[in-house]
Amino acid sequence: MSRFETPSDTATGNLVDLLLGGLPAEAVLTDPDVTAAYANDMASFCPAGSPAVVVLPRTVEQVQHVMRTATALRVPVVPQGARTGLSGAANASDGCIVLSLTKMDRILEINPVDRIAVAEPGVINAALSRAVGEHGLYYPPDPSSWEMCTIGGNIGTASGGLCCVKYGVTAEYVLGLDVVLADGRLMSTGRRTAKGVAGYDLTRLFVGSEGSLGIVVGAVLGLRPKPPEQLVLAAEFASAAAACDAVCRIMEGGHVPSLLELMDRTTVKAVNAMAQMGLPESTEALLLAAFDTTAPAADLAAVGALCEAAGATQVVPADDVAESELLLQARRLSLTALEAVKGVTMIDDVCVPRSRLAEMLEGVDRIAEKYRLTIGVVAHAGDGNTHPTVCFDPADPDESRRARESFDEIMALGLELGGTITGEHGVGVLKKEWLAREIGPVGMEMQRAVKQAFDPLNILNPGKLF
Amino acid sequence: MSRFETPSDTATGNLVDLLLGGLPAEAVLTDPDVTAAYANDMASFCPAGSPAVVVLPRTVEQVQHVMRTATALRVPVVPQGARTGLSGAANASDGCIVLSLTKMDRILEINPVDRIAVAEPGVINAALSRAVGEHGLYYPPDPSSWEMCTIGGNIGTASGGLCCVKYGVTAEYVLGLDVVLADGRLMSTGRRTAKGVAGYDLTRLFVGSEGSLGIVVGAVLGLRPKPPEQLVLAAEFASAAAACDAVCRIMEGGHVPSLLELMDRTTVKAVNAMAQMGLPESTEALLLAAFDTTAPAADLAAVGALCEAAGATQVVPADDVAESELLLQARRLSLTALEAVKGVTMIDDVCVPRSRLAEMLEGVDRIAEKYRLTIGVVAHAGDGNTHPTVCFDPADPDESRRARESFDEIMALGLELGGTITGEHGVGVLKKEWLAREIGPVGMEMQRAVKQAFDPLNILNPGKLF
Repeated sequence: MSRFETPSDTATGNLVDLLLGGLPAEAVLTDPDVTAAYANDMASFCPAGSPAVVVLPRTVEQVQHVMRTATALRVPVVPQGARTGLSGAANASDGCIVLSLTKMDRILEINPVDRIAVAEPGVINAALSRAVGEHGLYYPPDPSSWEMCTIGGNIGTASGGLCCVKYGVTAEYVLGLDVVLADGRLMSTGRRTAKGVAGYDLTRLFVGSEGSLGIVVGAVLGLRPKPPEQLVLAAEFASAAAACDAVCRIMEGGHVPSLLELMDRTTVKAVNAMAQMGLPESTEALLLAAFDTTAPAADLAAVGALCEAAGATQVVPADDVAESELLLQARRLSLTALEAVKGVTMIDDVCVPRSRLAEMLEGVDRIAEKYRLTIGVVAHAGDGNTHPTVCFDPADPDESRRARESFDEIMALGLELGGTITGEHGVGVLKKEWLAREIGPVGMEMQRAVKQAFDPLNILNPGKLF
Repeated sequence: MSRFETPSDTATGNLVDLLLGGLPAEAVLTDPDVTAAYANDMASFCPAGSPAVVVLPRTVEQVQHVMRTATALRVPVVPQGARTGLSGAANASDGCIVLSLTKMDRILEINPVDRIAVAEPGVINAALSRAVGEHGLYYPPDPSSWEMCTIGGNIGTASGGLCCVKYGVTAEYVLGLDVVLADGRLMSTGRRTAKGVAGYDLTRLFVGSEGSLGIVVGAVLGLRPKPPEQLVLAAEFASAAAACDAVCRIMEGGHVPSLLELMDRTTVKAVNAMAQMGLPESTEALLLAAFDTTAPAADLAAVGALCEAAGATQVVPADDVAESELLLQARRLSLTALEAVKGVTMIDDVCVPRSRLAEMLEGVDRIAEKYRLTIGVVAHAGDGNTHPTVCFDPADPDESRRARESFDEIMALGLELGGTITGEHGVGVLKKEWLAREIGPVGMEMQRAVKQAFDPLNILNPGKLF
C-alpha cells in the first residue's frame, strides 16, 4: 500500500483488478466523474451513493465473472438498464459495482410461427418493437420511456404502459429467462413453448424483482400478431366523477379498449398552458379511449354513447389514424406539461380497483387542497392505475416537505380503497417503507425468505424493496 | 395406551384428537374404507399411500387449525380438490392428513366493473364459469374436467384447456391469493386491481406449486367479457405433417383462433370405432379451428384457405353454433375413445414449440412402432401442447412396462425438440424424475431453496415435484 492510499482505495483497487481479470479495460469504468453519471434513475426523493466501479459486460460469461467477483469480495451489485425507472431501484449504493446491461443489446431470434423473440437485457424496448413489427408481430408492453428503456429494465420493474388495459403488463410476455445468480452460476427458467408448468414459476418471480434475486442476461419473450392501428375517441366531462363513471360503464359493458386514459382538470390546464392545444378550460376531465379492432368505428360509437350517458359534454371520435394521433398528443404531453408547472414533479403510481377510481380522484383533490399543492392526475383509467403527479419547487423546503407528505397520503388512500402502492413503477427505494403496509408482516417475512434463498449474502441490489 | 393399540394407532389417535379440537366431528374422517377413497387422483403409474385421516374444513380458521396441528406433530399434509389431476400430485402418502378443500365452495363475489371474482378453492370450475356468465363475464380456463375439477385444484396444477391458444392458462387469471402457510399463519398475496407490482410475485409462485408451498384458501380471479359463441371449422389431412404445416401457417398468418386442436389417425379411428361418427378412415389427421370473433365466418374462410394450401383433403366450416358443437364432438370423445381401445390409457402432456409439432408427431409414431403400442395423439395444436395417449392392458405386465418406457421416451423427445415435460398437467409424482432433466442442477437447487423457504419441515405434500 502506498502511504497516499486509504484502505478503501486499496479495496477498490483490488476489486477493479479482479474485475479486469474477466472484463476488457473499456468495460470497467472507475473515473468518479464518469461513474457518478450512473448513480441515479429518474425517481425523485431517492438517495443514491457513489459506485466504486461501473462495469459494462457484453457477454453472459462476463456477467458471471462480475458476480463471482462480487461474491468473493462481498461487494454489493446494482444492476442497471437505461435508468429510466421511477422508484430508485437502479440507484447506486456507496462502494457498489454498478452492473450496466446496456451493452448486451442483441436481439437473438424472432420467430413468427412460435411468436417469440429472444433478446439480451440491454435491447431498447422500441428497438424490439420495431424489429418484431417487421415480421407482423407485436410486443405490447409500452412504458412511456419505451424509446429509451431496456427490456431488462422492463423485466426488473415489471413495467406497464398505455396498452395494458387490453394486453397486460410485461410479466405476461416473459416466457423464460437466463439469470446469473449471486454466486455467478447461470440458471435458465421457464420455456420457449406457449405453455409449460414444470416446477415453480421462477420466471415470474424474477419479473419485478428489481435485480434483487439475480441478473437477467437473456429473455424469451412472447409476441402477438400486430393488431390494426387503433382509432381514438376523446370525451370531455364536467366532473372527474362523470369521467370515472364512463370508465365503469365501458368496462362493465364488456368493451375491450386498447387504451383508456384519463387526464384531470389540472393536467388539461397544464397541457393547454404549454402547448395551446385548445382544450376547453371548462374541462374537468378528459377521457381517451381507443380500439384496435377490425371495426373500430363501431366500437367508438358504442363507447361514445356510454360516455354521453355518463354526462360527457363533448365526444370526438377520430376518423382516421392521423386524427387519432392528434387526440393522443394531449396525453403524451401530460407529464412534460406537469413538470413545467413548478420545475419538478414526483410521480405516484397507485392502482385501485377501477370501481373505486372516482373516490381516488376525489381523494387526491382533497389531498392537494390540504397540502396547498398542484397535483395533476393522469391515469391508465381502464386499469384503475393512477399517476397523481405532485408539482413542486425543490428549492422551497416547505413545499418539498409537503410534496413528500402528500405523496405518502396518496398511497395510504390507495390502500384504503383496496388498491396497491404501485401498479407498474415498482417499490425500489421510494416505496420500500410502504411495502410492509401493503403486504403485512407474514407477507414480508416470506418475501425476505425468498430473497434469502436467492441472495444469502445480500449483495444483489441491497436496500431496495425491503 | 391400551394393550390392543399399536404405537402408530396412538399417534393417529393423538392426531385425530388434536384435529377435533378445531374441527367438527363430521369434518374428520377416519374410517379406513372411507379414507381409502381419497388416496388417488386420476394419474396412472403413481403409487399412493394410506391417509391417517381426511379432513374437510369449511373455513380458513379450520384450515389454519389443521396446519398448526400438522406442524406440531410433523405430519405430512396432502391438499386435494376434486382429484381429477393427471400427475399424482393429489395422491395420499402413508399416515398423512388429506386436506380436502371441496367443502370450501363459496363464490364470494363477482364484480363486473372490476372484472374479478373472489372464490373459495372448492368451487367447481363449471360452477364459477356459469355464475360469472350470468353477469356477461367469462372465466376462460377450461380443463377437460371442468364439470368436476375445482378452482383450487386448477390453481395448484396451473391447469390449461382448449381455450389457452387464445386466452392463456390458469396462471393468467389468478390475481391474488389467500394462503395458509405450513405453520398455520395466513398470508395474502397479490391484489384485487388490474395491475400491481408491490414486491415479489408470490401469487404466481403458488400457481402450479401443487400444494407444496401452502394451502390456497381463497383466490381473486380475473375475468374477461364473455366473447361471442365460437364457430368451428374441421379440416382433414392426408398426413400429420400437413396438418402441422397448416397450424404453422395459421399462427404465422397472425390469426388468433379460440381453439386449434389436432387429432391424429389413431385417435380418429378410435372415435370412429366408438361413436360411428363417419370420419373418413383415410384421415391421417383432423384439425379443428374455431373463432369467437364478431365475424367468425371470415376468419374461418381465411383459415380454411390456409388449410387447403397446406394440403387439406377436406375443409368443413360450420354455419352455426349447433354445427360447431357437432364438429367438436369428435374432439370431446377422443380420450374416452382411446381408453376404450385397451381399457387403460396413460396421458402424456408434452409441449413443444409449435414449429416443432410435426417432428413431435412423427417421433411419437416412431416410438409407438418401436414399443408395439397404440398411442393416439390429441393436441392443443395451436400451443404445441400434445397429449400422446398410450393405450395398454394393465393385466399384461410386458405391455405395461412398454407403456411406461414409451411414456418416458416421449418426454425425452419433447425436451430434445426444445419443449417441456408438462404443458398443463404438472409434475406431481408421475414426472418428478424428469423435472431435473428439464430444469438442470442449478434450477433444481433454487426450486428446492424456495420449497425450503416456505416449508422448512417438509410437511406440505412431501414427495411431490422433487
